[in-house]
Amino acid sequence: MPKLDLASVPVKTGSIYPAPYAAQMADRSSLRLGEAGGLTQFGVNLVTLEPGAKSSLRHWHEREDEFVMVTEGTCLLIDDDGEHVMGAGDCAAFPAGEANGHHFVNRSESVAKFLVVGSKMNPERATYSDVDLAVEIADGKARFTHKDGRDYEGAD
Amino acid sequence: MPKLDLASVPVKTGSIYPAPYAAQMADRSSLRLGEAGGLTQFGVNLVTLEPGAKSSLRHWHEREDEFVMVTEGTCLLIDDDGEHVMGAGDCAAFPAGEANGHHFVNRSESVAKFLVVGSKMNPERATYSDVDLAVEIADGKARFTHKDGRDYEGAD
Repeated sequence: MPKLDLASVPVKTGSIYPAPYAAQMADRSSLRLGEAGGLTQFGVNLVTLEPGAKSSLRHWHEREDEFVMVTEGTCLLIDDDGEHVMGAGDCAAFPAGEANGHHFVNRSESVAKFLVVGSKMNPERATYSDVDLAVEIADGKARFTHKDGRDYEGAD
Repeated sequence: MPKLDLASVPVKTGSIYPAPYAAQMADRSSLRLGEAGGLTQFGVNLVTLEPGAKSSLRHWHEREDEFVMVTEGTCLLIDDDGEHVMGAGDCAAFPAGEANGHHFVNRSESVAKFLVVGSKMNPERATYSDVDLAVEIADGKARFTHKDGRDYEGAD
């Protein structure tokens, strides 16, 4: 039925990032709500950030729009312009191709949650603002590269 | 900047439905958040239902996925299977082409709000479950019809 039973949606943890970045994604988890509801045209995830956690490396998407609404607690949106406090109900939009790397960091002492929506482009490319890393995603497979396009061989 | 100032987003009221249905959409309003943030690949609206209001006529989409999260108050999701109470944080997903007409009704005495995400297919067709009405949307223009495809000429 259309109403989702969030308690039955698998909790996804871990990260596909190469070392040493995957370890930085500890204490982040998510529920793939769109997938649980049978949607295929866009992704909808409910992300939980424990105190100290971050949503991702700071990044931007070449072809995919992204939208976020904080639903619980408080976190920081960090982008090229600095830090922006986001409380429950606050929203942010990241149009495809705008090279303003962003992520969400929970520096509070309570859990923070946000809903994130993203379109599903194939192929897609994302660039990580603060490190020498990018990712190309095609047909569901991710290939991490240095920013010059070489296969990723590790951090300097 | 990516963080949205919700207070500056225009409040959309009214309805494009033909009579007598447009009048049934009183006390519903929405903020087009995705558009305000420069997104084009999917729509994101924050809908406010005053006590007694409904989100739309009960309908289903032929080609567009739809996702809803209630963000404030309590409302009822009404679909082919009956009434389902939706409180803050509850979510529902409506895959394209599933002919389960749905809408949200606020029978409480407080405001209810929900975030709704929908893909943008061109053209698109939606069918209204409880009345002899359908709509075809192409290039941003809506054409209301009877369910047999004739131009809409009014309710029986």
